[in-house]
Amino acid sequence: MTTTAEGAAGQVTVLGLGDMGSAIARTFVDRGYRTTVWNRTASKAAPLVDAGATAAATAAEAVAASPLVVICLLDSTAVDEVLSTVEGAVAGKVLVNVTSGSPAQARANEQWASERGAEYVDGKIMGDPPYVGTPNIMFPFSGSRQAFAAHESALQELGTIAYHGEDAGAAAVEFMAQVAASYELLIGFLHTLRLVQAEGVDVVEFADRFAGSLAAFPPLLASMSKAIKSGEYAPDLGPLNVQAALMDDMISHRDSLGVEAVRMREVKELMDRRIADGHGDQGFSSLFELLKRR
Amino acid sequence: MTTTAEGAAGQVTVLGLGDMGSAIARTFVDRGYRTTVWNRTASKAAPLVDAGATAAATAAEAVAASPLVVICLLDSTAVDEVLSTVEGAVAGKVLVNVTSGSPAQARANEQWASERGAEYVDGKIMGDPPYVGTPNIMFPFSGSRQAFAAHESALQELGTIAYHGEDAGAAAVEFMAQVAASYELLIGFLHTLRLVQAEGVDVVEFADRFAGSLAAFPPLLASMSKAIKSGEYAPDLGPLNVQAALMDDMISHRDSLGVEAVRMREVKELMDRRIADGHGDQGFSSLFELLKRR
Repeated sequence: MTTTAEGAAGQVTVLGLGDMGSAIARTFVDRGYRTTVWNRTASKAAPLVDAGATAAATAAEAVAASPLVVICLLDSTAVDEVLSTVEGAVAGKVLVNVTSGSPAQARANEQWASERGAEYVDGKIMGDPPYVGTPNIMFPFSGSRQAFAAHESALQELGTIAYHGEDAGAAAVEFMAQVAASYELLIGFLHTLRLVQAEGVDVVEFADRFAGSLAAFPPLLASMSKAIKSGEYAPDLGPLNVQAALMDDMISHRDSLGVEAVRMREVKELMDRRIADGHGDQGFSSLFELLKRR
Repeated sequence: MTTTAEGAAGQVTVLGLGDMGSAIARTFVDRGYRTTVWNRTASKAAPLVDAGATAAATAAEAVAASPLVVICLLDSTAVDEVLSTVEGAVAGKVLVNVTSGSPAQARANEQWASERGAEYVDGKIMGDPPYVGTPNIMFPFSGSRQAFAAHESALQELGTIAYHGEDAGAAAVEFMAQVAASYELLIGFLHTLRLVQAEGVDVVEFADRFAGSLAAFPPLLASMSKAIKSGEYAPDLGPLNVQAALMDDMISHRDSLGVEAVRMREVKELMDRRIADGHGDQGFSSLFELLKRR
């Protein structure tokens, strides 16, 4: 019967009912999925059961209930613990683990699942629980292409999704890289606001102007990444010979205000090294050559 | 005669004919201004004279020729040297100095001009010479409001201009802060590309995705700056208690790849201090409280 087939496509289990797991389970319930939930502390399931979900007594029962199992736990230690209790139930299932963790942990989970006849998709979450079910939360996924394709429509219920390839670690790489680049921008922004405040300028007005400046970055980031990929460095942001003098000005200005200049000193030192190596005509992106892995 | 008055409004002198000074002078010539130019090395004036400018034999003659004098030299040392040679010619003039330099240098120049009966406007240039005369180059200005207003239409010929107030140092503050925040973003981006590359992900594709993510920052920067101004810190990016665990993940991931984690360690340390002080429920912007001036 087609209704059975459709029913099977609309069955999902969610393991872990913290704020994020609950938001995920609630979205599935609201969109008409037959949703089974489990949480170590069973009381967390009550509001979801009220909304129409079924609570399983054990994680293994929850896994057995649906072809698609979404795992959203506190951390990778919790994932390891819970997976060890469902070992006999995962064969033939698709495990989609959106718990935070490293690329290496994602790859280890995939290995574990594969050895037990399950397919594994790793996911990461870029956004907060209230945005689950809207386009304003991003879910990078990676791992089994076939499993992702089979459950893409269910995963699309959760937010803006993207598939980053068969390496199960790729979603975590994307998350780590996006989050790191964001924190770099934001901690630099806080230090800059300290400078702005020290000079008596309104921090809110400056933030508004800097936010406006961000519109100029996409083409710059694109050209810099192309330079790095090709190793052919045009003088982006001007030749290093010129930029190095600007760094000196910025460092001495910060020193005069007692504002930290960690990154400015680092950039200046990198520029000086490139200039000493005869690359003073190249641009900012060429500093990448000196960011060797330690 | 009205033609005389109009002629006076359209007269401008440019001191300094490097790439930027030449682009500025050329823009004025092309827009029909009676343009007088001077450069220490006189040969730099030749292309501008061919285009219709008048070359002055000395900086003092050049200053005497126009009510508006735009100064665009190599650095503030060059400004000091040239100003010392025009001391007797500046009374009644408006000096608009767009040479790079610190807020303190701008304030000192204003003092110098004021003592000699001249009005001073400081300007900084955010963009490259080929963009002079287009909206794609930004000129923050500050200093004499009256002088800026009197010559606003001439300065608008150069690009997108903004007036930042009577403090002559304000344009330099804006420049230093905008450029610093940009370098923070960009050096963080380079380190992130190193991580991305170490994980085998295409740097150009990642850059494109991160560029797309920048669209999410303007509202975040606005809310963070408001939190900092008010001292009331909501849990932006989540409570610090939660974010600190993420920082640990990011640091250990970077360490496993041999990629630097200077800012991540700094952020983690700041988060730990806020948490120890009982502010683990506040958000990222509250770290500002710890960025004390040294």
